[in-house]
Amino acid sequence: MSKDFLVQLCELIGQPFVLTESSDQKKYVSDWFGRASGKAIAVARPSSTQEVANIVKLCQKYQISIVPQGGNTGLVGGGLPDNSGKELVLSLERMNKVRTIDLMGKTITVDTGLILANLHQSAKEHGMEFPLTMGSQGSATIGGMLSTNAGGTSVVRYGNARDLCLGLEVVTAEGEIWNGLRTLRKNNTGYDLKDLYIGAEGTLGIITGAVLKLIPTPKVKLSALLSLESPSAAISLLEFVQNKANSQLTAFELISDTCLSLVDHYFPQYSYPFASKTPYCVLLEISDTESESHAFDLLNSILEESIEKALITDAIIPQSIMQSNRFWEIREHIPLSQVEDGKNVKHDISLPISLIPTFLEKARLLVLEAFPSARIIDFGHLGDGNIHYNVAAPLHSSPEEFMQNKATINDMIHELVHDMDGSISAEHGIGANKAHELVKFKSPIELELMRQIKNSLDPRGIFNPHKILL
Amino acid sequence: MSKDFLVQLCELIGQPFVLTESSDQKKYVSDWFGRASGKAIAVARPSSTQEVANIVKLCQKYQISIVPQGGNTGLVGGGLPDNSGKELVLSLERMNKVRTIDLMGKTITVDTGLILANLHQSAKEHGMEFPLTMGSQGSATIGGMLSTNAGGTSVVRYGNARDLCLGLEVVTAEGEIWNGLRTLRKNNTGYDLKDLYIGAEGTLGIITGAVLKLIPTPKVKLSALLSLESPSAAISLLEFVQNKANSQLTAFELISDTCLSLVDHYFPQYSYPFASKTPYCVLLEISDTESESHAFDLLNSILEESIEKALITDAIIPQSIMQSNRFWEIREHIPLSQVEDGKNVKHDISLPISLIPTFLEKARLLVLEAFPSARIIDFGHLGDGNIHYNVAAPLHSSPEEFMQNKATINDMIHELVHDMDGSISAEHGIGANKAHELVKFKSPIELELMRQIKNSLDPRGIFNPHKILL
Repeated sequence: MSKDFLVQLCELIGQPFVLTESSDQKKYVSDWFGRASGKAIAVARPSSTQEVANIVKLCQKYQISIVPQGGNTGLVGGGLPDNSGKELVLSLERMNKVRTIDLMGKTITVDTGLILANLHQSAKEHGMEFPLTMGSQGSATIGGMLSTNAGGTSVVRYGNARDLCLGLEVVTAEGEIWNGLRTLRKNNTGYDLKDLYIGAEGTLGIITGAVLKLIPTPKVKLSALLSLESPSAAISLLEFVQNKANSQLTAFELISDTCLSLVDHYFPQYSYPFASKTPYCVLLEISDTESESHAFDLLNSILEESIEKALITDAIIPQSIMQSNRFWEIREHIPLSQVEDGKNVKHDISLPISLIPTFLEKARLLVLEAFPSARIIDFGHLGDGNIHYNVAAPLHSSPEEFMQNKATINDMIHELVHDMDGSISAEHGIGANKAHELVKFKSPIELELMRQIKNSLDPRGIFNPHKILL
Repeated sequence: MSKDFLVQLCELIGQPFVLTESSDQKKYVSDWFGRASGKAIAVARPSSTQEVANIVKLCQKYQISIVPQGGNTGLVGGGLPDNSGKELVLSLERMNKVRTIDLMGKTITVDTGLILANLHQSAKEHGMEFPLTMGSQGSATIGGMLSTNAGGTSVVRYGNARDLCLGLEVVTAEGEIWNGLRTLRKNNTGYDLKDLYIGAEGTLGIITGAVLKLIPTPKVKLSALLSLESPSAAISLLEFVQNKANSQLTAFELISDTCLSLVDHYFPQYSYPFASKTPYCVLLEISDTESESHAFDLLNSILEESIEKALITDAIIPQSIMQSNRFWEIREHIPLSQVEDGKNVKHDISLPISLIPTFLEKARLLVLEAFPSARIIDFGHLGDGNIHYNVAAPLHSSPEEFMQNKATINDMIHELVHDMDGSISAEHGIGANKAHELVKFKSPIELELMRQIKNSLDPRGIFNPHKILL
């Protein structure tokens, strides 16, 4: 029967686009840092929405589950098949075109296999910008970005992927095509299907097309690095800058000393930026539509007043746009340094912003009580209350061995987050890896509402089984 | 049996809060402009979320439908009972408290019976602002605002109600309480229930609590009135101002000569603002966090350049904040003038912004071909592509008689809107009044997806029957 299925699949989309050999499947069934690996009955690479719809109908006939996949850069195993060898990976990578751009309406309509960096390029060619950026943008696709409601460093100003999307095209569990590719800024005609499919991690439908918002490119973006004594000072700084710069504040990242030191260690070209050690620093970005001098004036007055108010201890003001960009390279090398450093226990958590200092202090005490020499590598999007709270093995010890404590540390941190009304996944999603934790931390009522929706839109459970909901 | 129900209802929430006399019910069963009127088995006025939950359970037992109601200012009959006398109106007006404010996190948590103007006041007392404003804000409640995903004049900058809400508390069809009162800026842990309940017009659950975003109060808001030759010039002006002022542009309203003349006629204190007649004008608002002089500089440079570029023909720059506010009084008196003028055929439509000039021209030709002396009263939130396109009876003729053409004119306009990929309800919702049109203009696939969701979350159809979905 699986042979019949594969024959018909080849008929639908062409044999070269159905990968059954494990050597061909490799990049689709394991994630980029090799943490998880599954098997697939095949990897299907359709070229059009209609082909996707036809595949779904075929899968319904043969009761084959579908795992939709974009650039396979997810961090929670949401785009990977299980180990049964029975699931079909449906890669949207060949559906990678910009369909239309409306400069007046400031929208771009795309296939969802389009890579995020290519979307940036297309927008740029038209003097516009798509403001969601993230480390994986050279491989991540729009479909993945929408299915995980991706975040990144500009959320404080522009919101998550959901906030930047106006319309969708989705293939339903019946293999029908819902054309919701609206470019409208306002439309109150029934239930918000768009936002339901966004963030559903491919469990409710396959997003094949999207209308995204563009913004006029700011005249200039300037960043500064500000050292400070504590997360609590960072929170006061955030409040001050938000009131002062308002929507010109386009990023506000917290970085701990441990992060700066790690980058310095593994990438000496990005040496420790301050003359002396600082417990924390903030990387902030100002975008300005007026002029470079207006931006520098704002930045300078922020820094002067912050020093006056004793919110910061030191500041590196960029002498040029290039130096400004270099701050971001340091920021981007934090996860890369962590890869060099070896495995660590990761958390992508969010909290009410005012509780972040308390959380960091409580978490530190908990971790160090249990693992006195563990290293805490904490950084993140403080402007959104989102911290990547990572715990690494003590120096000169085996990361692999330390990872045996993963579940213990995850529980410790996530329980604290839960107690403080936070989220155990701020921007990475639930996927396969956190599904067992969701059961623990979501209320039974919310889980039941979610199951009702899943059952109504995908009654036979064909889309991405055991992701989000076990 | 209905007697048993009423007795038990009185036991649940107290007899004084169960209105069964038609004189007591009047303001709950007819809308504020007297256009629609139903009957109710009773009006229930609970004081807490738990009471709401208890009422829902009782209604499930007796199979009594529930019509949730806020300030009863809706424009599409979404909060009114039908004429059967069998539905229960559930008014949230007694649930009107601010629960908590988090100034650092910039959030406010409220009961949804709270009146919008009172929310504005609470925010103001803390030096903050809730940026959604609309004409009905003295009566409209947060629950109604969320259930209709209300818009208003600041959507161009701050988005609709949905964009301003972070979390909800909802009573489900089973009479359970979902506590989704999150204050988080980021949270990717499953399906987006919040956005599903928002805009569902009370058909999926009863929103009893909400967490809303606050913003720091801008230092100054300045408005200007700019006359121009055509909607097409207004579109070019919009593009220019958006690039120049970016997020400082907080309103961009199009107003036709017919509107200004109508206000002048019925409210002579708001006389025609320009020295000579102008086909259209734009009311724009700049909000500034720096200083009044910075705002005036920006406004002046916008006006100078707009005149240079021949985008506008004349401009009224305010001499004071008070004059600036007065422009908004003119704007707000447009619907009031229409009430004075008598009934007219209303449309609340949105289009891709670049198509608005074509739409207005095509619509004008269609209307005047069929009704040569009809008056077109068109104005709206051009920055969002949302036009209130109203057609009034010829001068010196009977509005009542003209209203016999309502269905014909609705069809004409909505079919044009649909052909141009627009929406037949930009911000008012579908309610009861437009449900029959939705069937015509939504794709069968989208209607089916909506029905599946309705059936899954409210399987016995207890919440607001025949609203949105027939």
